Order: sequence, then C-alpha cells, then structure tokens
Amino acid sequence: MGKAKKSPFRFLDVVTEFIEGLVETYPGLQYLDGFPEVKVVIRADALGTTYDKVAVISGGGSGHEPAHAGYVGEGMLTAAICGDVFASPSVDSILAGIRAVTGPMGCLLIVKNYTGDRLNFGLAAEQARSEGYKIETVIVGDDCALPPPRGIAGRRGLAGTVLVHKVAGAAAAAGLALADVASEAQRASEMVGTMGVALSVCTLPGQVTSDRLGPGKMELGLGIHGEAGAAVADLQPVDVVVSHVLSQILSLETNYVPITRGNRVVLMINGLGATPVMELMIAAGKIVPKLQLEFGLAVERVYTGSFMTSLDMAGFSISIMKADQTLLQRLDAPTKAPHWPVGSAGNRPPAKIPVPLPPSRSTKSEESLSRPLQLSEQGRILEAAIEAAVNAVIGMRDSLNDWDSKVGDGDCGSTMYRGATAILDDMKKYYPLNDAAETVNEIGSSVRRAMGGTSGVLYNIFCKAAYAKLKANSDSAVTAKQWAEALEAAIAAVSKYGGASAGYRTLLDALIPASAVLKERLTAGDDSCTSFLLSSEAASAGAESTKDMPAQAGRSSYVSAAILATVPDPGAMAAAAWYRAAALAVKAKYEKA
Amino acid sequence: MGKAKKSPFRFLDVVTEFIEGLVETYPGLQYLDGFPEVKVVIRADALGTTYDKVAVISGGGSGHEPAHAGYVGEGMLTAAICGDVFASPSVDSILAGIRAVTGPMGCLLIVKNYTGDRLNFGLAAEQARSEGYKIETVIVGDDCALPPPRGIAGRRGLAGTVLVHKVAGAAAAAGLALADVASEAQRASEMVGTMGVALSVCTLPGQVTSDRLGPGKMELGLGIHGEAGAAVADLQPVDVVVSHVLSQILSLETNYVPITRGNRVVLMINGLGATPVMELMIAAGKIVPKLQLEFGLAVERVYTGSFMTSLDMAGFSISIMKADQTLLQRLDAPTKAPHWPVGSAGNRPPAKIPVPLPPSRSTKSEESLSRPLQLSEQGRILEAAIEAAVNAVIGMRDSLNDWDSKVGDGDCGSTMYRGATAILDDMKKYYPLNDAAETVNEIGSSVRRAMGGTSGVLYNIFCKAAYAKLKANSDSAVTAKQWAEALEAAIAAVSKYGGASAGYRTLLDALIPASAVLKERLTAGDDSCTSFLLSSEAASAGAESTKDMPAQAGRSSYVSAAILATVPDPGAMAAAAWYRAAALAVKAKYEKA
Repeated sequence: MGKAKKSPFRFLDVVTEFIEGLVETYPGLQYLDGFPEVKVVIRADALGTTYDKVAVISGGGSGHEPAHAGYVGEGMLTAAICGDVFASPSVDSILAGIRAVTGPMGCLLIVKNYTGDRLNFGLAAEQARSEGYKIETVIVGDDCALPPPRGIAGRRGLAGTVLVHKVAGAAAAAGLALADVASEAQRASEMVGTMGVALSVCTLPGQVTSDRLGPGKMELGLGIHGEAGAAVADLQPVDVVVSHVLSQILSLETNYVPITRGNRVVLMINGLGATPVMELMIAAGKIVPKLQLEFGLAVERVYTGSFMTSLDMAGFSISIMKADQTLLQRLDAPTKAPHWPVGSAGNRPPAKIPVPLPPSRSTKSEESLSRPLQLSEQGRILEAAIEAAVNAVIGMRDSLNDWDSKVGDGDCGSTMYRGATAILDDMKKYYPLNDAAETVNEIGSSVRRAMGGTSGVLYNIFCKAAYAKLKANSDSAVTAKQWAEALEAAIAAVSKYGGASAGYRTLLDALIPASAVLKERLTAGDDSCTSFLLSSEAASAGAESTKDMPAQAGRSSYVSAAILATVPDPGAMAAAAWYRAAALAVKAKYEKA
Repeated sequence: MGKAKKSPFRFLDVVTEFIEGLVETYPGLQYLDGFPEVKVVIRADALGTTYDKVAVISGGGSGHEPAHAGYVGEGMLTAAICGDVFASPSVDSILAGIRAVTGPMGCLLIVKNYTGDRLNFGLAAEQARSEGYKIETVIVGDDCALPPPRGIAGRRGLAGTVLVHKVAGAAAAAGLALADVASEAQRASEMVGTMGVALSVCTLPGQVTSDRLGPGKMELGLGIHGEAGAAVADLQPVDVVVSHVLSQILSLETNYVPITRGNRVVLMINGLGATPVMELMIAAGKIVPKLQLEFGLAVERVYTGSFMTSLDMAGFSISIMKADQTLLQRLDAPTKAPHWPVGSAGNRPPAKIPVPLPPSRSTKSEESLSRPLQLSEQGRILEAAIEAAVNAVIGMRDSLNDWDSKVGDGDCGSTMYRGATAILDDMKKYYPLNDAAETVNEIGSSVRRAMGGTSGVLYNIFCKAAYAKLKANSDSAVTAKQWAEALEAAIAAVSKYGGASAGYRTLLDALIPASAVLKERLTAGDDSCTSFLLSSEAASAGAESTKDMPAQAGRSSYVSAAILATVPDPGAMAAAAWYRAAALAVKAKYEKA
C-alpha cells in the first residue's frame, strides 16, 4: 500500500526533459542528437575528432541526479550516458557517447557495479574496441552495507563513484595516458567505501510511493534504486546512526577499505534527494570529530551535498576514501563540472581558530558616564526639554492605553511609560547633558533596555540615527539646523527599517510634518524657538489627523474604519506630546534666560 | 492535524550544529566565537582590521540553507548572520558580525524584507554607525505573489535575494566604494521578482508536519517560513504551473519588475529543500522556452538548484531579473562562495547545436559482406568448425532445457538454439570466412540479434573481445597462438563484465580450463590440433565439475545443494559442447587435408 506522490512532474518523459533543462542551465554542456533513444550529455568543447585527452565517460540509470550528467565538464567527465529512471542505458546510447568524444588518446568507462550496466557498458566497450577505439573500463562497487558477497553481483556502486569520476577526470585532464588514467581510477575505486541510511522510500515517476518503512523506522545500508536496505532499525539520534555506519564502513572484518588508524581520508556526505543541506551539514559536523577521535583518522577533505541521489528519497550516505597526496591533488584539481562541490579543496587548518569578538570601538561605557557637575546653558535647556517630554508621556499613560485598546494591543501607554521613567532615572544618574549627541545616544540605550517590542526598537533606531548625525555634524554645541538634520535622519531610519511612510497611521505622522515645518521655518529665517514651537503644532495636528487614516499593519488593520475614525494613533499622539512638551520647555527656558 | 516528521535530527540545536558541519566542509569559512548566542559565519581570510574591500553581510532566520552561510566567500558575502530557525538574529549577533569583518571601506547589509530582520539589522546598523563604522543597508522584497501591499510589511524577501548578494559581492570585490556597492545592490533588488509553488509544507525541527495542503493540491505564492501561500489550487502539469507563475511575476498590472518584451533576463529556479535536481532541471527546461517564445525575452543565464530553501518543503520558486551587461558581469564574476552555482556563467550559444552521431569507423556493413566465392584453406577449416559447433548446440537443446529447468529458467537450450541457428543461417549468407577475425565479429552480431538476455550479451561480449584481439594481432591467417590469445581475451571480458570467475558455476568453468590447457600445450610445443583437442577435453571436464559448485547468481542460488549436485551448469555444458565439436572438426579437417 502507499499513496501517489503529489507531483506535477509525474507524467513526463523525465530523463529527456531533465537533459533539456540541464543544457539550458549550463551552456558548457550539450546533448547528442538522436533523442529520445540516445540520451547522452557531453562537453560542448570536447569532440572526439579533435579531443587530445583521454575521454572519461560514466553513466547508468537516471534518478541519481546530479549524477552523472552534472559531472560532465573539463576536469571530470567528458560524457554521461543517461538511461531511463533506474534502467541501464542501451548499448547504442553508450556507443554513441564513446564515438562522440573519444579521440586518439582513448576512453575510460567508469561503471557502477550493476549487472545491466556492466553488460551494456561492457558490450559497448568491446564494440568500440572493434571499431578501433582504445577503451578501458573500471567497475566501481563501494557498498559496505552487506557482508562480502560470494556471487556474481558483487558490491553495488554508490556515491563513492563520484570520487572516482573526479580522480579519473583530473588524471585525464593532466594529460595522462589511458592506462594510467584507468589505473588511478581503479585504485581510487578500491580505496572508497560507502553506506547509506534512508528515512523514506523513493517514488518512481508516475508510480505510488511505498510505505515500506513504518513510522519511527529507518533503513540501514540501502541502495540507490529503491531496493530494500540491509536492515530496518528504530529511528535513533544522528550521533548513534552515524557511529553505526562508520563502524560498518571501516569494519576490519569485511576489510572493504584498507583504512587503519593514522590514515588520511576524505569524507563524502551524500544526500539521497530530499534531504535539506542543513541536515547534511549537521551530519558532517558529527562525523568528522568521530572519525578523528574514535577512529584516529585525519580527515583531509569533506564533501557535503546531494551528489548521487535516489529520486526523492530522504536520508544520506557516507563515503570514506583513503587518501594520499596524489589523490588529494586529483580531488583538488580545478574542474568545470557544474555539480562537483567547490570550497572543499585545500588543506584544512589544523584546528579551528575561533575569531574573537573585536572590542567595541566605542570608548565609553556606562560606568564612565556621569551627570556633569556643572551644566552648560545648552545642558540645562536639554535637561528641561527631556524632563518635560518624558513627563508628558508619563501623564498620557491612561489615554494612550485607552486609545490603543480600541485599535491595538492596549499597551502603548504602559510601554511608553516604561521608557519615559527609565529616561528620567538614567538622566539623573549619568546622562552627559553638556554633550547633546551623547545624551541622545544614552536615551536610545535607556529606551532599548526598558521598552522592548517593536516600538522600543524603533525609538532606539530613532535615537541612534539622530546620534550618528549629531556626532558627524557638531562638536559640542548643537545648532537648531543641526537638530533639524538629526530629526530628519532619525525619521528616515525609522521609516526605512520600520517600513512605514506618511499616512501609515504611525508615529511618523506626527514627526514627519514636524520635521518639515522645522526645516521650512529655519530656512525662512525664523528663530529657533519659534520654529521649534511651530513645528510642534504641526506634530500635534499630524497626530490628530491619523484618525482619518486606514491602518496598515498589526491589529489595527483588522479594525473597522468607523472605529478607527474615533481614535487617533496612540503612537503618533505620544510622539506629538513629547515633541510639543519639549518645544514648550525650550521656549520657557529661553524666555527665562 | 499532522504527523511528526521522521528525522534523527529533530532534537538538536540545529543551527549551531549546522554551522559546525559547514566549517568542517569548507575550510575557507570560520565562525565567530561567542557560540551559541552569536551565530556568525565569516570568511576565514577577511578580518575587519585588515580588510580593504567593502564588507557585504546578509543573514536572517535559519532554515533556508544554503542561504545565507553558503554564500560566504570571496566575491560574495563577507559574513552571514544566522538566527534560529525562521527567527531573526539578535542585534548583538549582527553587531558582532559587522565588527568582525568591517574595515575602513565600510559594510553593506543586505536584508530580506521581514519586520524582525529589518528592525534588528536596522538597529545594528545604527549602533555600528554610532561606533564609527560606515554602514549602508539594502532591503530586498522580491515577492510577486501578492497584490501590491498598502501596509508596512511590504513584499517579502525570497530567493531573488541570492542574486542581490552576488551582485553586491562582486561589486565589493571589484573595489567599489560603499555607496556604489549599495547602489548596485539596490538596483539589483529592484530588477528581480520571485514567486513560488509548494507541493508540501515544511517541518520545523521537533515539530509536527502540517497537512494543510490536502491531496492533489498545491500552493501558489508561498513564503519561505511555512506561512500559507497566496492561493491553493488543484495540482496541474508543470507546464501549466510555470506559465501561471511567469505571468504573475511579469504582470504589467502589478508592474513589480520593469521587464518588457525584448529585454534580457536571468532566471533562477530555486528548490525549496526537498525537491530533487531532476525536477528542478525539468522546470528549467520548460521555463526557458516559455520566456523566449511567449514573453519575448532573451534568457542570458539560468541558475537551477536549491539556493534559498524552506527546510524540507517540496516545491520551487522562480526568480526573474532584468539584466544588462554590468549586472551579467557581476553575476559571472568569480567567487569562492561554496554554494553559488558554477557552470551557468558565460554567454549562451545562440541556439543549441545538436552533435551528430559520428559515423561508425567500421567500414563494412552487412550489405557489403558476402560469403567468399572461393574459401581459403583456413576458411574451409573455420567453416567446418563453426558448423560442427552450432550443430552440437542444436543437438543439445532438450538436454540443456532439462538441466536448466532444475536449476534455472528452463530456457537455456532454447536460447542457445536460437543463437546457433542464426549463426548457421548468417554464415551461409554472408560470413567472410576467409577472414577469421571478421567472421568472429559477425558471429557476435548474429548472436546479439537472435539470443537476447544476459547470455546473448555475454556471448556477444565474448565474440567482440576475441575479434578485437584477433584484429590487433593478425592480418588474415590466424596462428594457433593467436587463437589462444583471443580466447583468453574473450574469457577476461566475459569475466569482467559478467562478474563471474572460475567456480561460479557458469560457462567460464568450461572455458577457463580450456584456455589454460590450450596455452600450456602450445607453449610446451604441441601441435595446434593436439593442443586444441586436449583443451576441449579440459572444457568437458570443467563443465561436468560444475555439479559440485554452489550457485552464485540468478535462480540457481535458491536451489538446494542436493539438487544442484545432480545437474551440471547448462551454460558450461553448452560451451564445452561447442568447443569440443569445433576441436574435433578442426582435427578431422587437418587429417583429411
């Protein structure tokens, strides 16, 4: 029993259409005419008659993408012969590939050990030889899941084959003769062992998904053609699973790979088709230290990705290959094959070197800050403005909460109150009031600690942006024009990161008109106090006007227009209130002075 | 309702463990100390104090792997800030990243448009600015699934962000100043539109999979955080699905991307986590011609893979970006980022150029073959040997079938009979008997046409391998030593591709002893006839000895040893019979001559 896989792809001639998409994606690849019977992907730049290197060809049934066509490219495969899903390609298809890319240096066929592939590639090899081509064949059987077989079938070819492709392709690209390329590939195939773990069974196109694996079960030692694994086990944590798999690959009893303590190895963690990169990387992070600490191996390279899949199977396989300098050189050699992994080459640092967090460049800390003993004139005015502003907010707590309960979370007043009282407390303790810029910065820090939520972050951004502008513009005394520029920068930052603009029913609907009027009046030549006061009237008018605005975000957007029209935006009202209170306080100070 | 996802990964601290695996895989990446609160992946070769290019930083919630950490590397991102799964990273984490990699040229933050990311990256940017760093921010919202939003949220950032990373990274690597890098990134973000199709819903680690999507349904216009898509539709063929998605991205009504007929574009087909490469490539193969023919666009680059995923979601998204020469240069520029796709760079050929099948180098064809009017002495002997051999097989049909019915399919006699009669017929018509090598080659072709099955392929391989050896060794007359070498080569090929060795209860158990004795007698100086005859006795003895061998493959391996001991392997018996008949015929001819 099972259920049909949900896919818009299931009724297509999948292999042909896969190849069509592949060559659209990679301009360096082409396919042989003769579709659909012949399905051969070749390097666009390597035609047999002129090709002066050993051609390296692999292939087999499809359903293992990116294998094998994704490994075609300079430095790896010269051609890939694609059979139908899980079916060996025909002798004619293989022969077509050999004829297309084989030059005078000859051709190496790399064949995964399955009876159909062995026979069809074998016959094609003999046929090509009888046509005068120089052909060698290497058969890869890297499976370590089953006890040593006594029969003809032998060990299956699995993901380790991709490493053999790379070694052979690099040897060929280096200009080696056919016999030497074949001998390096043969040696590589003898150095690699693979075993897999499946969490689901793959779905053949147009067929029904088997639910052979029950809930809470996994399959160990699976193949890549949907065949049953060597054993079904209870699902266990990834640590336990990989320990078991590593022990089996490196078993001294089967002695499948000649790897012993102290050896250098390369590691391939291969996703089976539907396994996310995150899970593969987590597996890699578990396997490497195990190989190092429990098995005493030096892990020289790690390849993590989906290299030899089984359609949409969930799970992964692990391949371990004994490495020496020559083999590492072949694996590191450049290739244009699009699916050979990049970034794994090169020697690994002997240990990870965690990078220390650089110390903050800001030289001040809260401890070093303190309220000046003597306030400058500007310091006194700033203090009065801040005090008036926060008191205005404190006095509005209930109104703000009331408005907010109709259109939002009902906590606007309480949140603003927390910020305001924190500012009041901190100012008494340590705000450096004679330095306006630093004081604005500290207001931001107070707000961040006390307020939380989106409004806390936005007011923090507001203060930090104003601070940066003030810092860049002025030394200590700040002119009205500089305040106006700081306000403008702060509004721009809140708009950018908060996403709101004028008319969005937010605090910006108070501050944007205020900023505009302030700039306008100063430019027109009005004095600072008048300009500030006029701009604060614009803030109040702007805040009131939010009643007529539709809501754009949060809970307000679910509230009817009729209700919205009865309340202004509490955030805008709060902003207008502190702005106006500050303006009035500044005016009072100037008049007194 | 739903069912728990089956995974050995679900109880882990997935993001930290992902990063540990990532840096094991890619030696060019490191992570910032300060784990687990700070999760920042950085280039191992770019520390802020000495870094002389603009730093490019991106990040956001995890669960989108390989985004963003997989794009860290020279020519792309300088650092990636990783939040928990689907959760924005903390301001402290972002600040740590900025401080670690930002040098005097400054830093560009590329932020996907989500409220949390915008606020946290925004606050970190302002904080970093106040510490003296030069910071610019570009917010990417490439979603085309929803109608133009009127609110604060805006369009979501999706896979198109990866293209913006690449453009910005390449501009920074080219040495541009911060303002110019930011302006190129901003422009790129305005040129790209994305929309997705989901076939399943993703599973959060440790949580239960939603089955929001019923059977036979797909979701259009999904996000990458498990949120519901814009619409649920009946599952349709991939052609129909991609047409719909392309129309929506390129809609003149929403006008999200400024792309019109005649424009050049690049295309990204992005798997959402559990979509096999095969399906993505098939989608690519459908989309490119549609863009060309239906929308009149020149598709300059195609990127197909899993670039910005949503955990294990099945499905894909399509991104289309308007391209000009500068942008293509940025996309094509080299990068060491391990997950930026390779092989898509460079200009596409104007049309695909199908490669013709090279004509076979073999100059003969069946029509040109004909039985010689006059047979040479060797031709007469060869004819007699072939005739005797096939008649022996024909005469054994019932015995072979009888033995095979006890240990196999019961058709060995019938299959061999088909091959034998075909040889007899074809020999009369056209075998070039004066040329021994070519005649052996033709026997292989007759067998391939008539026999089928594994035995047909193996006998074909046998003949092709013998032919290649004869052809290489001799001109026309073939010496006994050359026949012996051809036999040896043919046996080696059958053993290699068929997988059997001596003792596997196959035809090789007749032929291997025959070959050994033939070689041995000839080396000892015996005459050809005697050597051939003695070797044929060895073949018969070898075939009889198969009774005592265990079966290694096929149905025989399920048959008890007691039954196996009563019958020889029919394939071995057939091989011994034709070999002995041929030897006797040769001897008779020589005696007559």
